[in-house]
Amino acid sequence: MAGSTFGTIFKITTWGESHGKGLGVVIDGCPAGIRLSENDIQKFLDRRKPGQSKITTQRKEADEVEILSGVFDGCTTGTPISMIVKNTSQISKDYSEIASCYRPGHADYTFDAKYGFRDYRGGGRSSGRETIGRVAAGAVAALALQQLGIEVTAYTKAIHNIEINPENFDCSSILETPTCMPDREASKRAEEYLAKCIENMDSAGGIIECVAKHVPAGIGDPVFEKLDANLSKAIMSIGAVKAVEIGDGIQVATANGSTNNDAFCMTDGKVTKKTNHAGGILGGMSDGSDIILRAYVKPTPSIFSTQETINKDMEEIEIQIKGRHDPIIVPRAVVVVEAMTAITLFDALLVNMTARMDNIKKFYQDYPEK
Amino acid sequence: MAGSTFGTIFKITTWGESHGKGLGVVIDGCPAGIRLSENDIQKFLDRRKPGQSKITTQRKEADEVEILSGVFDGCTTGTPISMIVKNTSQISKDYSEIASCYRPGHADYTFDAKYGFRDYRGGGRSSGRETIGRVAAGAVAALALQQLGIEVTAYTKAIHNIEINPENFDCSSILETPTCMPDREASKRAEEYLAKCIENMDSAGGIIECVAKHVPAGIGDPVFEKLDANLSKAIMSIGAVKAVEIGDGIQVATANGSTNNDAFCMTDGKVTKKTNHAGGILGGMSDGSDIILRAYVKPTPSIFSTQETINKDMEEIEIQIKGRHDPIIVPRAVVVVEAMTAITLFDALLVNMTARMDNIKKFYQDYPEK
Amino acid sequence: MAGSTFGTIFKITTWGESHGKGLGVVIDGCPAGIRLSENDIQKFLDRRKPGQSKITTQRKEADEVEILSGVFDGCTTGTPISMIVKNTSQISKDYSEIASCYRPGHADYTFDAKYGFRDYRGGGRSSGRETIGRVAAGAVAALALQQLGIEVTAYTKAIHNIEINPENFDCSSILETPTCMPDREASKRAEEYLAKCIENMDSAGGIIECVAKHVPAGIGDPVFEKLDANLSKAIMSIGAVKAVEIGDGIQVATANGSTNNDAFCMTDGKVTKKTNHAGGILGGMSDGSDIILRAYVKPTPSIFSTQETINKDMEEIEIQIKGRHDPIIVPRAVVVVEAMTAITLFDALLVNMTARMDNIKKFYQDYPEK
Amino acid sequence: MAGSTFGTIFKITTWGESHGKGLGVVIDGCPAGIRLSENDIQKFLDRRKPGQSKITTQRKEADEVEILSGVFDGCTTGTPISMIVKNTSQISKDYSEIASCYRPGHADYTFDAKYGFRDYRGGGRSSGRETIGRVAAGAVAALALQQLGIEVTAYTKAIHNIEINPENFDCSSILETPTCMPDREASKRAEEYLAKCIENMDSAGGIIECVAKHVPAGIGDPVFEKLDANLSKAIMSIGAVKAVEIGDGIQVATANGSTNNDAFCMTDGKVTKKTNHAGGILGGMSDGSDIILRAYVKPTPSIFSTQETINKDMEEIEIQIKGRHDPIIVPRAVVVVEAMTAITLFDALLVNMTARMDNIKKFYQDYPEK
Repeated sequence: MAGSTFGTIFKITTWGESHGKGLGVVIDGCPAGIRLSENDIQKFLDRRKPGQSKITTQRKEADEVEILSGVFDGCTTGTPISMIVKNTSQISKDYSEIASCYRPGHADYTFDAKYGFRDYRGGGRSSGRETIGRVAAGAVAALALQQLGIEVTAYTKAIHNIEINPENFDCSSILETPTCMPDREASKRAEEYLAKCIENMDSAGGIIECVAKHVPAGIGDPVFEKLDANLSKAIMSIGAVKAVEIGDGIQVATANGSTNNDAFCMTDGKVTKKTNHAGGILGGMSDGSDIILRAYVKPTPSIFSTQETINKDMEEIEIQIKGRHDPIIVPRAVVVVEAMTAITLFDALLVNMTARMDNIKKFYQDYPEK
Repeated sequence: MAGSTFGTIFKITTWGESHGKGLGVVIDGCPAGIRLSENDIQKFLDRRKPGQSKITTQRKEADEVEILSGVFDGCTTGTPISMIVKNTSQISKDYSEIASCYRPGHADYTFDAKYGFRDYRGGGRSSGRETIGRVAAGAVAALALQQLGIEVTAYTKAIHNIEINPENFDCSSILETPTCMPDREASKRAEEYLAKCIENMDSAGGIIECVAKHVPAGIGDPVFEKLDANLSKAIMSIGAVKAVEIGDGIQVATANGSTNNDAFCMTDGKVTKKTNHAGGILGGMSDGSDIILRAYVKPTPSIFSTQETINKDMEEIEIQIKGRHDPIIVPRAVVVVEAMTAITLFDALLVNMTARMDNIKKFYQDYPEK
Repeated sequence: MAGSTFGTIFKITTWGESHGKGLGVVIDGCPAGIRLSENDIQKFLDRRKPGQSKITTQRKEADEVEILSGVFDGCTTGTPISMIVKNTSQISKDYSEIASCYRPGHADYTFDAKYGFRDYRGGGRSSGRETIGRVAAGAVAALALQQLGIEVTAYTKAIHNIEINPENFDCSSILETPTCMPDREASKRAEEYLAKCIENMDSAGGIIECVAKHVPAGIGDPVFEKLDANLSKAIMSIGAVKAVEIGDGIQVATANGSTNNDAFCMTDGKVTKKTNHAGGILGGMSDGSDIILRAYVKPTPSIFSTQETINKDMEEIEIQIKGRHDPIIVPRAVVVVEAMTAITLFDALLVNMTARMDNIKKFYQDYPEK
Repeated sequence: MAGSTFGTIFKITTWGESHGKGLGVVIDGCPAGIRLSENDIQKFLDRRKPGQSKITTQRKEADEVEILSGVFDGCTTGTPISMIVKNTSQISKDYSEIASCYRPGHADYTFDAKYGFRDYRGGGRSSGRETIGRVAAGAVAALALQQLGIEVTAYTKAIHNIEINPENFDCSSILETPTCMPDREASKRAEEYLAKCIENMDSAGGIIECVAKHVPAGIGDPVFEKLDANLSKAIMSIGAVKAVEIGDGIQVATANGSTNNDAFCMTDGKVTKKTNHAGGILGGMSDGSDIILRAYVKPTPSIFSTQETINKDMEEIEIQIKGRHDPIIVPRAVVVVEAMTAITLFDALLVNMTARMDNIKKFYQDYPEK
């Protein structure tokens, strides 16, 4: 199993390598009747496109999406939605050197260990380009969530040790700064830091935060399919993520019950909580508060300074990586985190429809006259 | 979908409520020919048993496991292994009060939101007793891993802000201290801290670390079924866990590529790494180094001090939780983390057998004369 | 994978061997709020109980079911429903001989080929008793279908070459005759035939038919999860079934389009069809007509006359099977076919709830105030 | 769930509509190291191409396959293999009429009932063209099986009531006759019959048989994942198939145990059987004999004579279907049955590798030095 499928009802299967003919995704189980155009998808894909600022790789990739099936008369039909982005800007010679050696921090060695050989061009299946299919599918999930009144927003919370100031939170800044930080002042400082990283032939890590608003209570399941468990898998499956947290996350380890428990209360006739240390999930099910998660992203492993490693003949060597690389993965991964969160949430909402017999009866009493 | 199944080939399905007739697990897909007795399982279960020290609830639960199927002449047969632990020590009156109110930090409210009502006795399906099935299955996975030379060890890394000192690491201390800390000195300080928590009618959180040694390289899959993604789901699905990290985890956010990358090198003719910031996983596949993960566990939500909340009639009330509760979840969750890690690893090892055509050919050339 | 799980949302996992401690099933994903008692299950199980007439084995098995979890205050809670039937009447010595030889028509040899050894007592996991879990789960599915106005009825259509006469169709006869034929006259002739079979130390085959009424149109999916594909898997997975057909089944091979096509028409303002050659399924989805399927069941392989075979030492031998065996499997398999049909249909109805975005929106607009 | 995924380890996901941009398949979990070219796939696809004789539709479709990912240096890499066949010959005006009415025997009505609307052009997702993805994936599975010494061969056993004579069996005739019958004499008679069908503006049904040779014993699982159960699902999921049988199939209903049981014996030191009524499967697992199955295929529902039906406004109408249609589905479906059988078998062989702990230990003792 190459493990390229994700989801229970809204199920996505991605395919493609960095330097093959293209990359794509098939969404199976998307409900019929969602208005969908290539433009809706493109907006999401453009957010992960490189070459848009100094802090991303100078490669230019058109990354234009084409919908091949599952949409008719501008609407999803309920059948699989196949989407493709053709590779156009790949310069294979840039990558020829890595065919014979194992770059530190990359999957070159583990790929060879598993499969006996690998498509070494541009990282192959482990390239950041693998996320194209995730983002295209996430665009569809986000559209569907919107129709249910649910908004998912991800942004850069920190780059290296430069954190956003919640008091400066400015949503428009997410799409308008090269860092995707919702704080223009922090973004500027981060850009300066990254300029230094580039100068030092080094790279930096950071934190992405994602918030989902207006998710109804009761979404997710109580044991292995906990909403937070599935979100963790979704987020940790993004290359370069090394930690995931929900709500207060790592801070719960040093908290006490008296301060970590969120008191329930009533606000305008609705159940709410006085605090949200839990990040909107209790016992694996949404509690109606904002769902909050964070991904910790490692520095780009491709750096230009000389590194020690081994080659395929098991000889210790030194390498200097060439090519065009991002000094940081974080800003381009923001939309990937948003996409994976949207996919996970929408799937959980679909699965939840079968939780109660009274709802099922009501559904089929009206069916199919509606 | 109640989501009570986990795994692809080695697939476990757990069932049972805190105060029902019992709890159990069915393991489907366990290979034939593993020597297995109830005693092997009991050793694992005993590590999560309460009532063994001052820092766990004073409830006494026998928690004796019975194997109902799938084992014949002392060996697994390849058919489902059904195991049951009967509930014996439940005192239902202790819990009657919670039927009508929503305890902060618990799943009472989210259960009602999802299913319309709930088995309120002792937390029902969201009780810590739900982990009995996981631990019983984990014991089988751990036995199988041992036969492959793989060891999985979990322990308490921190309670509140009291961390173990790696220089004092003493494996025997894990099973011999009430905190499951591999550092007797830190354990003592933690016990003192917990005594104060009990005095203050409060509870504490902590960190569990788990290390898997001798996992061959190439285990796990490159995209959604990354080994770290599945481990994250496995660990985050344990009640009370709010963050998961692999290797350096959250620290990668403030690291640079030059320091975070692990240099490959050769040691005694074998591929190794000079450091292990990656925690043994690169691109979702094991790299042959130790696999290291950490779970951040929240303080027990059941505390004895008065708390604000609402009841089922949507009225704001104050409650004071009675009954017998652990001041900390961490020590009893250590074996659960170990179990979920073992289950995830063994399943990934089974799936990995089909990764290469040459191995498949070799397998069937020898088959079934072996 | 031992392959003991069936279903997508309403998911059952069965376990147990003929002569182990018992057999059972875990239903995961059963909606909350279905009134359910052990008595509801027992009624179904009693229909497969042996020892009730001359044409079934004279073994007496109490086969009493116990619900271990997932039901509270007489209602399903949404969490896994674990059910067990303990083995009480097993006489192990009856079966000791088969430990060392491979009975023709049985799974003894294939079990050894796969797993290296087997629980040889009474057929182990391949015993007819394996169906206990299916029937217990089927009872729950049938109850749920009833609440949606859907009825599933299976019966014996033929024993050997003795077929029921549709003009004599008498539903009450299904539960009242030992053959489960809905035609008392045919039943008598079949009983006479079976008496001869017993005399000849031989066994007979037959046909089971199953009809599901009032299934709404559109249930099932268009490609691999066709309703008929899943029903075929469900029915063919019952031991001894060697062919499955839907509607006119094998007769379509000699039909022409002009006679095999069912004309759509309107009846009382509803879409109906003038004929039902299709057996209620078009393109893998229900069309609103009765769903009709048939299972062809082989003669019991355990016969008392001498047979040629081999033993574990690969020597050709003759065996004479002892013990207590049914001269025909069909009557006791009727309720199993009904159960598997009910499980498959209910699961497909649950999955179908997510097919259209407008329904999903409507569902969540009302949620969770209902 | 649109249900477009099939398989456990070797997992295929198909997509595409008759008149969209194209159709395709993603194979996830294909082992690395299989030599594979577009030509290997094309050979299979050409067998289902129309326009090759009088008895298939006169549409010309190039149906050229392109491999988009998962193959590098002529070998599968272990990552998803995405394949596409672009639609080139579609004439949409031919189908405009069916937008508003429900053709008898087609999925028009059931699609609308499920999804609220449909891509009506050429049958959309329910077109015979849907099988393109299955055949492309089946070609890969067949290649892999060949490397294990396993051959799968399907052919037309009967058209209407004209059956092949086993004594005339001539394998070369399968690919050389327009009927795909392995009996040139029967093929001629069948062609004459079909010529009359065309004259009568009618269509015919038939039977496809498939034989798999040299499958080792023990493949498949004992309960729900029986090899015959999965084959039944695979075959019944092909549009127009209405019955599936294994071995003697429907004839077992009128057989007796004494004649239906296959005696085991030894031949050249190997376990064999004196007969093969079971069709190579006992208790859901292969027994080492030939695996034999049969699919009963209904007559093409698109016939040119006038038919009664209803339209979308629920009015009873008469229609006369135009366009280009096959008078019989059988010959073009032969390769589809072969493909689905190959996919199911190869997947079962992969899953089987994890059945025994001793094999697993052996595998990892050699790993990864091999």
